[in-house]
Amino acid sequence: MSFSLTILGSSSALPKPDRFTTAHVLNAHERFFLIDCGEGTQIQLRRFKIRFGRIHHIFITHLHGDHFFGLPGILSSFNLMGRKNPLHVYGPDKLQDIIMGLYETMGEKLNYEIIFTKVNFKQPELILETNNLSVTSIPLKHKIPTVGYVFREKDKLRKISRDLVTEMGLGVKEIISLKAGHDVIRPDGTCLESEKYTTPAAKPRSYAFISDTRYSELIIPMIKGVDLLYHEATYLDEMKRRAKETGHSTAAEAARVADLAGVRKLLIGHFSARYRDSLPLLREAQDIFPNTVAAEDGLCIDVDNS
Amino acid sequence: MSFSLTILGSSSALPKPDRFTTAHVLNAHERFFLIDCGEGTQIQLRRFKIRFGRIHHIFITHLHGDHFFGLPGILSSFNLMGRKNPLHVYGPDKLQDIIMGLYETMGEKLNYEIIFTKVNFKQPELILETNNLSVTSIPLKHKIPTVGYVFREKDKLRKISRDLVTEMGLGVKEIISLKAGHDVIRPDGTCLESEKYTTPAAKPRSYAFISDTRYSELIIPMIKGVDLLYHEATYLDEMKRRAKETGHSTAAEAARVADLAGVRKLLIGHFSARYRDSLPLLREAQDIFPNTVAAEDGLCIDVDNS
Repeated sequence: MSFSLTILGSSSALPKPDRFTTAHVLNAHERFFLIDCGEGTQIQLRRFKIRFGRIHHIFITHLHGDHFFGLPGILSSFNLMGRKNPLHVYGPDKLQDIIMGLYETMGEKLNYEIIFTKVNFKQPELILETNNLSVTSIPLKHKIPTVGYVFREKDKLRKISRDLVTEMGLGVKEIISLKAGHDVIRPDGTCLESEKYTTPAAKPRSYAFISDTRYSELIIPMIKGVDLLYHEATYLDEMKRRAKETGHSTAAEAARVADLAGVRKLLIGHFSARYRDSLPLLREAQDIFPNTVAAEDGLCIDVDNS
Repeated sequence: MSFSLTILGSSSALPKPDRFTTAHVLNAHERFFLIDCGEGTQIQLRRFKIRFGRIHHIFITHLHGDHFFGLPGILSSFNLMGRKNPLHVYGPDKLQDIIMGLYETMGEKLNYEIIFTKVNFKQPELILETNNLSVTSIPLKHKIPTVGYVFREKDKLRKISRDLVTEMGLGVKEIISLKAGHDVIRPDGTCLESEKYTTPAAKPRSYAFISDTRYSELIIPMIKGVDLLYHEATYLDEMKRRAKETGHSTAAEAARVADLAGVRKLLIGHFSARYRDSLPLLREAQDIFPNTVAAEDGLCIDVDNS
């Protein structure tokens, strides 16, 4: 089952032709979760061939334009493309006022429902739970109220081989019990032990999206051990003071957070337009946390914990 | 003196990676006039190396997202880049509510003044006059109130050669008079005839931007003889009925308008995303009006009437 991330925008406030503003798409079991929606997100979705119809959830971290100015465009395009399915949008409560106010003033009717969920800026909160995924919001330390989001697969069932199912003539209930880790006593008294007939479940995968924030160790308990951590890294550490003033982090700070949280892999992005390429930022982070990659528009990362 | 147009977006409602939504920039004597501002306009300005600081006037034709969803992004970027100069924005009156409402809700302060000018949807109106240019709005026939804009250079002065200035020892007042077409009587009684000492002024150039509209001959008197006419051509003529229903034009209709208005050159654009390339639309228009070009993002056209 897929659990992969595509970067649609990796620049900070000012976009460049090769680096749009922030937007990520998480493909979790072929359901697409859009996280932030900078200007031009819909263009990047087309560029990287991500089907609009697969997006049912959009998560906005805060109300700076480089994180949500692409939202009206994508909402209008959904409409033009005949969308009927409801769309869930998570974010600051004022986001709903902005979006609904915009369409009201324009006199344009969206032919599908938007269900807004207001995020909590004071404490972490479980904001979405599906059959196989949970999403939690995490308050961050930025200039305006901002959250991050953590996506976690739920515990999975143990694996059973098809050959064994056939060979043993296993019924549906028996398969469910064995995969859930329970032994099965058959009517003839034989015992089928789950441990013997199944192999361990794949470990649930996790992805944390830490949007604009200054360095903060308060988030560490919430992102502990995630498989992939995206943490903004707007500046090099030589601009640490400016980072703090503007509510941002340096590449070294992002790496320190990754290290303290014991994550598997770090992804840095939201690079200031002053940097021509991401290499110095990547090197700075790798000095502290070697398993770091730098976001580039179009980069696709399989979240892997095997 | 430059009078050239750069296409930033040539698609209709749905953008594609190689065709953003509508935006044009007219460079008139090194002052840049942005006409419509679809999503991603600021990215295209960077891509085509057009300096943000040269833009002081933005003209919006109507409140469909593909014509103005790029405006908040560019306004925020102006702010981030330290803009202090006022910005003139022309468009529907509700545009001001949308923009100012957005920044108020976001709690973001723009550190430069935006001067909004409300356009007239009932009759043509002169909305801007500079030393060398006039801009007039023209009501169009779309699904919602929409205008087009006509940019006209003012009459120019006759030309005088530097050699002649030196040879005759002409003074500043004499030069001004001669260039303005007046003869000069010198204190010694000699007469310098303007016609003899100067060559004719270059003809003023003109550009008409006919945004979303269904076929309408009512606009013809206002665009008569312009040097470059941009006219939307969303569909091929086989979709004439759909064009009319949706308030759009076909390539053939755009060409008919160009022909009836006796313009020098026609530029078609705003192509429906259903067309993979613009060639069939271009051919259809050229059958009626041979001097037609198809808009492509990045295309730059020198408006020439020599």
